Amino acid sequence: MPNKIVIIGGVACGPKAAARARRLEPAADITLIERGELFSYAGCGMPYYIQGEIPSVDELMSTPAGAVRDAAFFKNVKAIRCMGRTLAERIDRAQKLVHVVSLDSGEQSAIPYDKLVLATGADAVLPPIPGADLKHVFRLNHPYDAEGIRTAVANGCQRAVIVGAGLIGLEVAEALATRGLSVSIVEMLPMVVPAFLDADMAAHLQKHLAAKGVTVHTNACVTSLEADDAGRVAGVVTSTGCIAADLVLIAIGVRPNVKLARDAGLDIGDTGAIKVNIHLQTSDPDIYAGGDCVESIHRLTGKPCYVPLGSTANKHGRVIGDNVTGGDTTFPGVLGTVIFKAFDMNIGRVGLSEKDCAKLGIPYLVGLTPGPDRAHYYPTAKPMVLKMLSHAENGSLLGVQAVGPGDVAKRVDVVATALSYGAKTQDLAELDLAYAPPYSSAVDLLAHAANVISNKATGVAVAISPAELKAKLDAGEDFVLLDVRSPKEVAAMPFTDAHVVNIPLGMLRARLAELPRDKEIVAFCKISVRGYEAQRILHGEGFDNVCFLDGGLMAWPYPMKAVTA
Amino acid sequence: MPNKIVIIGGVACGPKAAARARRLEPAADITLIERGELFSYAGCGMPYYIQGEIPSVDELMSTPAGAVRDAAFFKNVKAIRCMGRTLAERIDRAQKLVHVVSLDSGEQSAIPYDKLVLATGADAVLPPIPGADLKHVFRLNHPYDAEGIRTAVANGCQRAVIVGAGLIGLEVAEALATRGLSVSIVEMLPMVVPAFLDADMAAHLQKHLAAKGVTVHTNACVTSLEADDAGRVAGVVTSTGCIAADLVLIAIGVRPNVKLARDAGLDIGDTGAIKVNIHLQTSDPDIYAGGDCVESIHRLTGKPCYVPLGSTANKHGRVIGDNVTGGDTTFPGVLGTVIFKAFDMNIGRVGLSEKDCAKLGIPYLVGLTPGPDRAHYYPTAKPMVLKMLSHAENGSLLGVQAVGPGDVAKRVDVVATALSYGAKTQDLAELDLAYAPPYSSAVDLLAHAANVISNKATGVAVAISPAELKAKLDAGEDFVLLDVRSPKEVAAMPFTDAHVVNIPLGMLRARLAELPRDKEIVAFCKISVRGYEAQRILHGEGFDNVCFLDGGLMAWPYPMKAVTA
Repeated sequence: MPNKIVIIGGVACGPKAAARARRLEPAADITLIERGELFSYAGCGMPYYIQGEIPSVDELMSTPAGAVRDAAFFKNVKAIRCMGRTLAERIDRAQKLVHVVSLDSGEQSAIPYDKLVLATGADAVLPPIPGADLKHVFRLNHPYDAEGIRTAVANGCQRAVIVGAGLIGLEVAEALATRGLSVSIVEMLPMVVPAFLDADMAAHLQKHLAAKGVTVHTNACVTSLEADDAGRVAGVVTSTGCIAADLVLIAIGVRPNVKLARDAGLDIGDTGAIKVNIHLQTSDPDIYAGGDCVESIHRLTGKPCYVPLGSTANKHGRVIGDNVTGGDTTFPGVLGTVIFKAFDMNIGRVGLSEKDCAKLGIPYLVGLTPGPDRAHYYPTAKPMVLKMLSHAENGSLLGVQAVGPGDVAKRVDVVATALSYGAKTQDLAELDLAYAPPYSSAVDLLAHAANVISNKATGVAVAISPAELKAKLDAGEDFVLLDVRSPKEVAAMPFTDAHVVNIPLGMLRARLAELPRDKEIVAFCKISVRGYEAQRILHGEGFDNVCFLDGGLMAWPYPMKAVTA
Repeated sequence: MPNKIVIIGGVACGPKAAARARRLEPAADITLIERGELFSYAGCGMPYYIQGEIPSVDELMSTPAGAVRDAAFFKNVKAIRCMGRTLAERIDRAQKLVHVVSLDSGEQSAIPYDKLVLATGADAVLPPIPGADLKHVFRLNHPYDAEGIRTAVANGCQRAVIVGAGLIGLEVAEALATRGLSVSIVEMLPMVVPAFLDADMAAHLQKHLAAKGVTVHTNACVTSLEADDAGRVAGVVTSTGCIAADLVLIAIGVRPNVKLARDAGLDIGDTGAIKVNIHLQTSDPDIYAGGDCVESIHRLTGKPCYVPLGSTANKHGRVIGDNVTGGDTTFPGVLGTVIFKAFDMNIGRVGLSEKDCAKLGIPYLVGLTPGPDRAHYYPTAKPMVLKMLSHAENGSLLGVQAVGPGDVAKRVDVVATALSYGAKTQDLAELDLAYAPPYSSAVDLLAHAANVISNKATGVAVAISPAELKAKLDAGEDFVLLDVRSPKEVAAMPFTDAHVVNIPLGMLRARLAELPRDKEIVAFCKISVRGYEAQRILHGEGFDNVCFLDGGLMAWPYPMKAVTA
């Protein structure tokens, strides 16, 4: 009797598990059940299809060699039976049967399994907002939704409102703005991408969105959607006012599809997703689950987390493909790695943020280092702001966030790798990373951030965070803000505040007499390197109440005219 | 008495050590001695200055904020005494004195030290070739050399010959070709960049150079340089013929400047560079050395190696700055990481190559995986060929080489990080690397390569290398080359050989009868994914002499018409 493998869910994890199982066990009987009619499409590509960067939705359903992954493809190439437009209604664990119904014919049947795989994915949350069912109100679950949005744009929609400033929301905001629509984003919380970034880093992104003409309404709750006479959406009513709209995307998050699992009595985690062990087995050892419907273990905290991603789903599929054919492969968990693009900015994070550390009670040090992503004199160098967190007591690397036009992805991936091995922060200063001017600086930002943290840990560097400085300014404290930039730089990027004294770094040693010894001095420059140097010089000269502004003006997330001029 | 720190060498490691020491010890007496008149320039930027991408040589000597790092800068900002145009002639270790002479005045003096730092760098090797002293024959040691080459180009030089197909040679070849010169490269060995790549990977680079109009003469030894009537170089005579030239760059490698150290009786390693311990102390504990004049320990092999790089020099400088001021910082060694750009191609490597493994007697498995650097449907996706090596017995990751227009740097850096922690190859399939279509594929090439190796290790995948297939073809062996690509792909990229049978993968299960069961079958496609799938299908159907071509046609380094059509 061949091993009967039944897989529910035809995208990412499911087809991957099926294909891997087939390669490992040529004689297995493999069935793939999918409620839609499309298999194995690249859901992550939908925003780029909306934007027009991907001309045809077929490309999202093709292999790199151009073959469309439909049922015939799976049958001919993989000898996998695909049942499209088929809903799995119930799992009979005792009999080891999946009860399904054809969405076209209504015909019911029961499919026997030896091993069952749940790859049921996640769906965009539909909040109970009056008007959410109006025409031209979308969620982005499926290529058909993307086609719907593209058609709406082709039909002349001009004012889009995105509900939710998460990843999907921002990606579609860019897509629609690029296509010429005026775009507003409504976010309930006080910042964009609240799930991923700290507020200071999110502020840089929000500035960039504003510069690109996207209006962001934070602290705004959507209460209803208004209709025109034809039943199309005409406006979004929020707690802070009404925004005219002829196209609305609701992107407030996704929720794992766990009904089938829950009804079958399988364990569901506190995250709301299916609980699995390191072999990706559910609480029934003959039922595996992977992809967007399961929770993962965070490799740093050891706690469950829910981070649905296509990359993780593919890894899950391979592990499950191994294990349903007798293998013993494990999945070690995730690091909360996220990356996305918003116009000219790359935004990434991995590991723990300040918010995460606060929640977990982990003491940390911050390295906040803006700078170019390659040799500053190389013409394609682009800036970014990198924020690194390190355990204040044991020196462990905790995480990184980075935003900017520069090459964020490379730094995030290096940190993701280091975190997988329990790296110490100082390790990052010692890595033999690839150096040549077109690719990086001789001292990469990662090494620089690690060095800043090491200097803080030993007390050599004494810094104040942008938020702390902002609070001092707002409170009207009496101190000196020492700007050590050149007059040319000051003119080009003025930081206007009554506290400011400007002494270029090269003159500081000669002009010490101009600085008070009885007041706190906060030194700063563009990126904090000279601010730090100034702090060292002043400490060396006996000034004992000196610090520098972490990250300098490039990392300053607030308006440059901090308070009254 | 302040700590007297004397540093010999004013570029990269030296100034870094000086600046770090100053920040840590405000009262130290720090002297920086440099034989030239420029301090702290970015030597790695010289090829880009020649190319014109960097308009002024001043940019190579400036901080990111635009301050020129001259003697006044070091004095005013860092309180470091700079002695330019000063040659350190002799170290008196007993008296702790450095004897120096001013190159301008001829004045001699002796500078006392408590801690001495040797950062004497390396110079381009000048081979004993007749004519090497002709006009318009250059080496690239110094910004003045770069200016000389730029002037020669401005004065109308049109035919450049580069002696040596190493990094500097290739970078300058691109620079000069971009400026419109016809460029030839002469290399003694049978391949380009022999120090860094395996022959198969170097072949891809050599193809690219040819496509960009650069003529590469391998296996060619330069015997002399010919002059015109004005004493300018006119031709390069090699073992395979004479090449007309009005500009010649000799770039056959660099040699560490160790005379001062050797004369002082300090230990010199087998690599020819100064031997240092993990604190970067020479055999005299009061004398430190770093940068291009020292050898490093390879973190994988534990053996000394000589890999001079600006990034390493900067790390050395920081470690030395710590240690000469009472610190206890160590340098863990290098991984032989190298990256460079050649026209539209990025070329990188880290860890061990096949050549290295052969030399060290390490058994290895190869993952040879061409593919796009981001989601294949994303418009900016670019290809590369990635070659991963894994220990055949213990599964340790050994190294990676990658070439192509795609984002090589990120993959090299991830592997450099993983290798620093003694990674297993399989770890790379489990890393939570940042995924979104503009940055990577859901299954990154690194994970793919690791999976290929894992499949080989378990016997699921059975592959043949391009070199092995080439040898079979050349030997006229009787076997079947099974091309499983679609007719459209075959037409677009024909692989013409009498052995070839074309059965698209989707038809393979139906057309098994067309294949012989008594002959070896080598399956292939564009990138080897379907070739592997075909191998699995055929194994499953009882064909027992089947393998696939590693890396498919994209990784095939030979002409596509392998033998007779």
